[in-house]
Amino acid sequence: MDNFSFYDPVKIIFGRGAIGKIGAETALYGRRALFVYGQGSIRKNGVYRAVTRSLKAAGVSVTEHGGARPNPVLSHAREGIRTARLKKCDVVVAVGGGSAIDEAKAIAAGVEYRGDVWDLFTKKSGIRASLPLIAASTLPASGSEMNSGFVLLNEETRQKFVTESDASFPKTSILDPETTAGLPREQTAYGAADALAHLLEAYITAASPDARVVDELVEGLARSVIVSTRRILKDPSDYGARSAMMWAAALAANGIGVCGYKGGIFLGHAIEHSLSAIYNLAHGAGLAIVMPACFKYQLKRTGPGRLAGFGNRVLGVKGRNEKETAELAIARLERFFSSSGAPTRLAHAGIPAGAIPELAENAGGLINLWGIDCGRAEVEKILRLAA
Amino acid sequence: MDNFSFYDPVKIIFGRGAIGKIGAETALYGRRALFVYGQGSIRKNGVYRAVTRSLKAAGVSVTEHGGARPNPVLSHAREGIRTARLKKCDVVVAVGGGSAIDEAKAIAAGVEYRGDVWDLFTKKSGIRASLPLIAASTLPASGSEMNSGFVLLNEETRQKFVTESDASFPKTSILDPETTAGLPREQTAYGAADALAHLLEAYITAASPDARVVDELVEGLARSVIVSTRRILKDPSDYGARSAMMWAAALAANGIGVCGYKGGIFLGHAIEHSLSAIYNLAHGAGLAIVMPACFKYQLKRTGPGRLAGFGNRVLGVKGRNEKETAELAIARLERFFSSSGAPTRLAHAGIPAGAIPELAENAGGLINLWGIDCGRAEVEKILRLAA
Repeated sequence: MDNFSFYDPVKIIFGRGAIGKIGAETALYGRRALFVYGQGSIRKNGVYRAVTRSLKAAGVSVTEHGGARPNPVLSHAREGIRTARLKKCDVVVAVGGGSAIDEAKAIAAGVEYRGDVWDLFTKKSGIRASLPLIAASTLPASGSEMNSGFVLLNEETRQKFVTESDASFPKTSILDPETTAGLPREQTAYGAADALAHLLEAYITAASPDARVVDELVEGLARSVIVSTRRILKDPSDYGARSAMMWAAALAANGIGVCGYKGGIFLGHAIEHSLSAIYNLAHGAGLAIVMPACFKYQLKRTGPGRLAGFGNRVLGVKGRNEKETAELAIARLERFFSSSGAPTRLAHAGIPAGAIPELAENAGGLINLWGIDCGRAEVEKILRLAA
Repeated sequence: MDNFSFYDPVKIIFGRGAIGKIGAETALYGRRALFVYGQGSIRKNGVYRAVTRSLKAAGVSVTEHGGARPNPVLSHAREGIRTARLKKCDVVVAVGGGSAIDEAKAIAAGVEYRGDVWDLFTKKSGIRASLPLIAASTLPASGSEMNSGFVLLNEETRQKFVTESDASFPKTSILDPETTAGLPREQTAYGAADALAHLLEAYITAASPDARVVDELVEGLARSVIVSTRRILKDPSDYGARSAMMWAAALAANGIGVCGYKGGIFLGHAIEHSLSAIYNLAHGAGLAIVMPACFKYQLKRTGPGRLAGFGNRVLGVKGRNEKETAELAIARLERFFSSSGAPTRLAHAGIPAGAIPELAENAGGLINLWGIDCGRAEVEKILRLAA
């Protein structure tokens, strides 16, 4: 096992009815909340009402900042920062998927930073402080509810960048599986792809880890994501499966799935960000396209060992040799994505093969920022495997 | 899945050489440390020197409080509280196994409490504050390095009680697998029994959980503990196995292994405390005796389902039916303990069958405090299964 640090101070309140506790949790940290949410689905499924009631009952005043986009954009975060300052908000409440929570993290950090919030993404500045954040996840996928990272898309430069800081962990996250009961099928599929990417990217690419204990956690969570997704697609009212998916997605990205791996890389994430930046694709949809291609590339680059282990233990496939098992595993993963309703080829998402050079160019930004050893020609090769 | 809360703000620094970071971590919280450790094994393996050097280099002055017993005792904790007050210590540093860390937690809380520290165990008072605690685990077993619970033995009343509070989490825990390289074989075996008890007690006794995602984590960690223990006993210098054992033991007791289970009980722990209280048995040794007996009792009480699942997926056993698989699983677990060098019968630890009524009487204290539904006659039955 490689040396690592692990830190995750988020308090999780999980279960039926947990959403009603958001007011009391918020009141522990502030009295004037900026309430960040997305495109309004929470107005249709009762979550908006549950949250505003709970905040009101706890004596917290609310300034709304709805409209966070699936790939949350810089301009909207800047607007949120202005509003929070104007209304003297002392706490941020985020309700929604990863995009609402990510934008809320950007706003919370941006309020406490004198310069422009984009500096915090380009590493022009670190993040030293943040307004306290209370989150309620309504879409199991990004794991943002249990980690300190966040993403923003700069519409002008078309850069979709990531940053993080210890100040950016939510103080409390509410995970109420019932709030996910009405998720559209494709969101369930995209969420599964995102959670699996968090679990599998470092796992597959890690070099000689001797970290079976971490493998055990990753493989167990990956099996749970796959089984739960199938159960949810079969019966959307399956509370047990909704619960498992919600908890697995949170743990998939809170750090325990990468601790101890040496040299694991998030190449698929880096490449996907170019798809969502340029084509405004849902992140999970982009990952379902990019991930199998990355694994095909990985198979050639570092051999079948890790992929075959994944195939054996998570997907139950077995070829005549390791290479065949690895190939079967990639094919099975791709079939899982497509049968769940996610695209698995650029063309499925209306992205022409001619866009590949531009996508590769764009992906270079994050690949460089993360120090991944993968040149533009290699990225083009990977994208061609997804064409 | 049942509703749950999860919170674990401990910062973990894990890996080769991590012990050298204890000074810098301590200096973040105080300048005058009370240094709590056990029976002096750290003086022989270089850990004492590494810790004191690191503290000195970070400008932290040290008052020593060595001699914590394997079952840490109230009188020694009281002494530590007096010393810490006298020397105006503003931070506690614990280095050792669960007993040193537990006693340090008691001292850290006791310094901030006006009454007698035992009140914090009998629930006469809650714990509202604690000196900051930095821990370095040198014996993977109790998981105290990553949770907020702690045990103390009251020698006068012969009660070995447990308490916990959010104020009692270590701020930082150092997990340096190299510091465990010289552990005696029996300590390795006892540590494995303790970690397995933390993993399995709630898992086996939980009622209809539909919490496969939690099962996956528990089963994966349990497999890691078993595999790592075998590797360590075969080759004590196996760093990969030492690492896996260290991380698995920490995660086994940090809460992720019980989240979402309904009605899981720690009956084995409650009964074992009577063995270590009266016969001063090592906690892990007592668990290796009590746990198989508890599972035999559980098999009769609630049927073979959970035990058979454990047998299938963790131990790889398969009988002609669930009951036989469950019985095979218990037998296999017992064999794992005995082949590792742990006692599995009261007689192995020199405890006569005649002591059973007294042990059952003593166990009643913790069973009542924890609200476990198990009368004295039942406890006697269980202990007779271990005779």
